[in-house]
Amino acid sequence: MFPFRVINQPTTEQLLDMASVIEVVEQAYQIKSSQQATLFPLIFHEFAAGKADMDIKSGHLPRADIFGLKLVSWFGENEQKGLPQLIGTVMVLDSRTGVPLGLLSGEHITCMRTGAAGGIGAKYLARPEAENLLMIGTGHQAPFQIIATLMAMDNIKRVYISHPRSYEKAQKFAATIKDRLLTAFVAKYEGEDYERYARKCEVEFIAVESLEKTVGEADVIITATPSRTPLIQSEWVKPGTHITCIGADMAGKQEIDERLFAMGRVFVDDIGQAVSVGETEIPLKKGLISQADIVAEIGSVILGQAAGRRSAEEITIFDSTGIALQDLLTAHHILQKAQASGAGAVVDL
Amino acid sequence: MFPFRVINQPTTEQLLDMASVIEVVEQAYQIKSSQQATLFPLIFHEFAAGKADMDIKSGHLPRADIFGLKLVSWFGENEQKGLPQLIGTVMVLDSRTGVPLGLLSGEHITCMRTGAAGGIGAKYLARPEAENLLMIGTGHQAPFQIIATLMAMDNIKRVYISHPRSYEKAQKFAATIKDRLLTAFVAKYEGEDYERYARKCEVEFIAVESLEKTVGEADVIITATPSRTPLIQSEWVKPGTHITCIGADMAGKQEIDERLFAMGRVFVDDIGQAVSVGETEIPLKKGLISQADIVAEIGSVILGQAAGRRSAEEITIFDSTGIALQDLLTAHHILQKAQASGAGAVVDL
Repeated sequence: MFPFRVINQPTTEQLLDMASVIEVVEQAYQIKSSQQATLFPLIFHEFAAGKADMDIKSGHLPRADIFGLKLVSWFGENEQKGLPQLIGTVMVLDSRTGVPLGLLSGEHITCMRTGAAGGIGAKYLARPEAENLLMIGTGHQAPFQIIATLMAMDNIKRVYISHPRSYEKAQKFAATIKDRLLTAFVAKYEGEDYERYARKCEVEFIAVESLEKTVGEADVIITATPSRTPLIQSEWVKPGTHITCIGADMAGKQEIDERLFAMGRVFVDDIGQAVSVGETEIPLKKGLISQADIVAEIGSVILGQAAGRRSAEEITIFDSTGIALQDLLTAHHILQKAQASGAGAVVDL
Repeated sequence: MFPFRVINQPTTEQLLDMASVIEVVEQAYQIKSSQQATLFPLIFHEFAAGKADMDIKSGHLPRADIFGLKLVSWFGENEQKGLPQLIGTVMVLDSRTGVPLGLLSGEHITCMRTGAAGGIGAKYLARPEAENLLMIGTGHQAPFQIIATLMAMDNIKRVYISHPRSYEKAQKFAATIKDRLLTAFVAKYEGEDYERYARKCEVEFIAVESLEKTVGEADVIITATPSRTPLIQSEWVKPGTHITCIGADMAGKQEIDERLFAMGRVFVDDIGQAVSVGETEIPLKKGLISQADIVAEIGSVILGQAAGRRSAEEITIFDSTGIALQDLLTAHHILQKAQASGAGAVVDL
């Protein structure tokens, strides 16, 4: 029998802080792009077309001596049953012995690593002097994107908030987001760290009605919506803008005008996923770009093996689809913290 | 948060009895062959060639309202570390909501469902009047095969025990197996069931030195060895014999003369697995049979959709490779029993 740690969602919330997750996800990207990890084939199954599905993403990270999987279920009708639509679990095993180490609730891990991805996209691809962040989407993921970008960047002064269909929702979000960021993310820190991150939240949060007008003022744009039609037209985007696309995670989803891909320098987290399920899928299918036009995986940029932004005029795009290594490494980080602090439930397996 | 049940190996041993597992595995075969289940693609990864690997088998069983996976690691050098070479876990989820139900230690589940497969092979394909069982292999799996066959058949009088290389090991096994069966399997039952199964163990257990001589006396032969060369030659096998091959679970493994496949009626648990990793692989590759010569999956025989044995003279072969549905349904059976009895550790996930 082995001691096996089970970590539920409140404990993952307690143990994760965004600055650490940004570090962990940067590591995950580097490991991926230096071929120090193996991603196993994705398993996807639809229980009922458009209503319920599940996927299993798995892989091996020799550098962390772990392998494992993340299983995510999506059941669209769960809300009527008082259950979350998305339910995820991450299992981590020791790749030196095959011994299972733990099982973790995956929802908060996914939210945090997805937020971190947005922060990392801005950090490596936006102009460092970027002042205006435009957040499109006010759903569950939006606060994670905003805090990660504020933490990863040094000069953000304004965060424009846009909801694809409802200005009122954008206003409500803008009115409360600062408190939410301080409570959910910044309160985790103490001393100088707390001061620094609290200061980063001292920006204007402005709900916007017209995307057409605001896109032209944005230095960094993040899209995190379930859209299937472009929300941003290419002619609205000014030179020097960086765009991170978060929402597209399955075939058919699209958040930005596909012509932007022909105008900008395109970076992805994983080429295979980006071309099949990411924002990159549609411009590629329409023949606006070829796969060779993808400049690099973000990990190669972090490693210094590929050039990121080359000038203040370039438009850069980061297509973040989410890779299992982010989840596995974040889960491993939690397990290490839990082992040190005794958090979670340990059972004999 | 969800109540999530973690069940370790001693608890799986406590909750499973072979007669129930035979029923469960028969159900799994029927579900499989009536296309009432979906097996997802197998994931296999080798950490170090010939030294360490893992696989993930997963699938959906709508009839039981579950889906899930079994992850098995094999680390050949674990024994030196005081760890088991094979470590397995099974995770079960509710396929109506995606909610994770539990995680179970997989080793005993695998042993029991593999034993049950041998019993089912004999029950549906051997002559009912079969008296002599020949067990080739005295490893961990042998007792499971023997008890399942004794329970599934009504007229067994002798169990011949053969070790591929060591008569001494066969003798040791034969001397103790009856007590082991009574303690490990029969003691689970009470009253009439106990009497019935104890009576089934009142057979002769005879270690044999020469396979060549004994094969000709056997009515049922079960092979459960890690062999890569045939242990049984086709000319030794008498008409009417049933053979179940358990050992071949990866490409290159072989336990019986491939010519037997051309002489006998061949049944499998899963056609895809049998032709790629099962005992069927080699006769097929050598062109002795074609895939069309596989009569049926055993599930079709149980369902009455395919003829099993048609005469007392036929040689029948059951190539049992092990399918995820057996594990998932057995795990579900355990979870239901555990829920009723409060066994296992329940944690909030």
